[in-house]
Amino acid sequence: MTISMHQVSVAPFKAGLKSLDSILDKAKAWTETRKIDPNALLLARLAPDMYTLTRQVQAVTDQARNVARLAGVERPAYDDTEKTFDELKQRIAKTIAFLDTVTPEKTQGAEDKTIDVPLGKESIQMKGIDYLERLVAPNFYFHLTAAYSILRHNGLEIGKRDFLGMR
Amino acid sequence: MTISMHQVSVAPFKAGLKSLDSILDKAKAWTETRKIDPNALLLARLAPDMYTLTRQVQAVTDQARNVARLAGVERPAYDDTEKTFDELKQRIAKTIAFLDTVTPEKTQGAEDKTIDVPLGKESIQMKGIDYLERLVAPNFYFHLTAAYSILRHNGLEIGKRDFLGMR
Repeated sequence: MTISMHQVSVAPFKAGLKSLDSILDKAKAWTETRKIDPNALLLARLAPDMYTLTRQVQAVTDQARNVARLAGVERPAYDDTEKTFDELKQRIAKTIAFLDTVTPEKTQGAEDKTIDVPLGKESIQMKGIDYLERLVAPNFYFHLTAAYSILRHNGLEIGKRDFLGMR
Repeated sequence: MTISMHQVSVAPFKAGLKSLDSILDKAKAWTETRKIDPNALLLARLAPDMYTLTRQVQAVTDQARNVARLAGVERPAYDDTEKTFDELKQRIAKTIAFLDTVTPEKTQGAEDKTIDVPLGKESIQMKGIDYLERLVAPNFYFHLTAAYSILRHNGLEIGKRDFLGMR
C-alpha cells in the first residue's frame, strides 16, 4: 500500500470537523444550562488581536475547503455571516458535505501538482504536498486548537478526548 | 511520485519545531528587554487544568519523538526537567537531531505497520497512518498552538508567520 492524499487531508480534516461540531454542542448546551450569553463565548478571544471563537471556527472550515485546490475542483464560497452556534454548526456540516464529494480519486497525484496559493494580492506556487503539510494542515489544527482553547479558557469542561474525537 | 511517510511526519514536525524554537527566542528576548520574570511565561497556562508553557513545549517534542514508533527505532528518553527557555531550546534541538536520524528509508511502509500505542496502563493497536493522522499530528499541532497561544495571550508580539515558520 502507499499513502494517498485523501488519507492525509480529507480524512483527518473530516475527523477534526466532527470533533469541533461536538465541542460546539457542548458549548451551546453549557450556555443554555448556565444561562450564559452565547456571545460571551462566540466573541471571546485569547488576545485582543487574535480571532474570536466564531472566526476561528470559520477559519477551520476555510482550511478544510482548501482541499478543493488539491482536488482541482471549485472551492465552495462561504459568506462569513455566522452569528450563532447553530449557524457555525451548519457551516461545519456544509464543509463535511463538501469533503464527502472529494473522493480519493479526485486528489490522487495532487502531491506533485503545482498549486496557486493566494497570498494577499499576489499568489505563490507550491507543490501539493508542501501546500498541505506546510500551510493547510498546520493552519487547520491551529484554528481548531484556538477554538478549543478559547472555550477551555472560558471554563467549558472539555478535554483532549473531545479535541481528538475519541468517544 | 507517491507520498512518503517521511514527508507527512518527520518533515513537517521538523519545521514546526524550528518555528517553536524561534518563538521561544522571541519570548526569552522579551523577558530580558522588559525585565519580566521568565517564569511568568514558562509557568503560564490558558486554564488552571491545562499545561504550562514549559509542559506544552515538552509535549510538542514528545509527539515528534513518537515518530520512533513508526520508524521502529528506540524512542529517545527525556527527563522532563527543563526549567528555562535555554533548556527547552536544548530539548527541541535534541528532538530535531533525533528526527535527522530518521531517514525516509526508516519510515518507508510504516503506514501499514501495526503500532502499539500506550494508553495509560494498557495499549491499543493502530495502523501507522492512523496513528500519525489521528493521534500524533493532531497532538503535535495542539501543543504547538497552545504554546503559541499562551505567549500571545500574555502579550508577546508574534504572529501566524512565526507559527508557520515563514521568514
